[in-house]
Amino acid sequence: MNLCNVLLVEDNPDDESLTLRGLRKAGFDPGVVVARDGAAAIETLAAMDPQPALVLLDLKLPKIDGTEVLRRIRENGPDRQPCVVVFTSSGEPRDIERCYGLGCNSYVIKPVAYESYIGTVEEICGYWLALNASSLRTAASR
Amino acid sequence: MNLCNVLLVEDNPDDESLTLRGLRKAGFDPGVVVARDGAAAIETLAAMDPQPALVLLDLKLPKIDGTEVLRRIRENGPDRQPCVVVFTSSGEPRDIERCYGLGCNSYVIKPVAYESYIGTVEEICGYWLALNASSLRTAASR
Repeated sequence: MNLCNVLLVEDNPDDESLTLRGLRKAGFDPGVVVARDGAAAIETLAAMDPQPALVLLDLKLPKIDGTEVLRRIRENGPDRQPCVVVFTSSGEPRDIERCYGLGCNSYVIKPVAYESYIGTVEEICGYWLALNASSLRTAASR
Repeated sequence: MNLCNVLLVEDNPDDESLTLRGLRKAGFDPGVVVARDGAAAIETLAAMDPQPALVLLDLKLPKIDGTEVLRRIRENGPDRQPCVVVFTSSGEPRDIERCYGLGCNSYVIKPVAYESYIGTVEEICGYWLALNASSLRTAASR
């Protein structure tokens, strides 16, 4: 089982590149899969068994937006519930409230500065992949 | 508005003391309220306006246990939804799955070693009080 499994849902190539750098710095590079639009995210998740420990989800996405991806993830059964961290440039109260209402675990606003962006990705991944106990990890280890 | 507002729900005096040390090290000491059983946690939360940004919730509690406290928090309206991190010595799959099912944001198993315990509290508080965007903070800042 790969404990470092992350699905990154991100359509912006610059943000994808920065996020992958943050993941590498945090030591979680090998287990990353990237989906570049919402439809690809849903298809990829449906095919992943076990589910990734963490979905890092942008909101503004082509085809199907991030809130709809989140809604569909939370419709799945209890064995298919990865931790979902919304990672977006939007600090709109409406987006934040909607995402918590749909069941995201956490909502982090993308920093604008390069170094802060990478440091934030490191902190997110360190928290969710090393400190947090996910129900998936438990299910997979039984 | 106090962004550092934490409700610590903990009945064990040693764990309370270690957690408060971790909060002080992370710089979040002034905004902490402690409830030492589940009934006190529910009463305290009902009286807090605004709600704390973070509830750090032990599971094995006198009077009303942690899962029931979590269930009651999630019954409240959308304006009264603090982030809830379950912080417990139990690594039982049943407890982990139940808490995610009841809507905790995160589940962290208490480290046994003293230094790790304090470091873990620092990491939890740094993540939820500095990095994460809560819907409460947003609501309070409008």
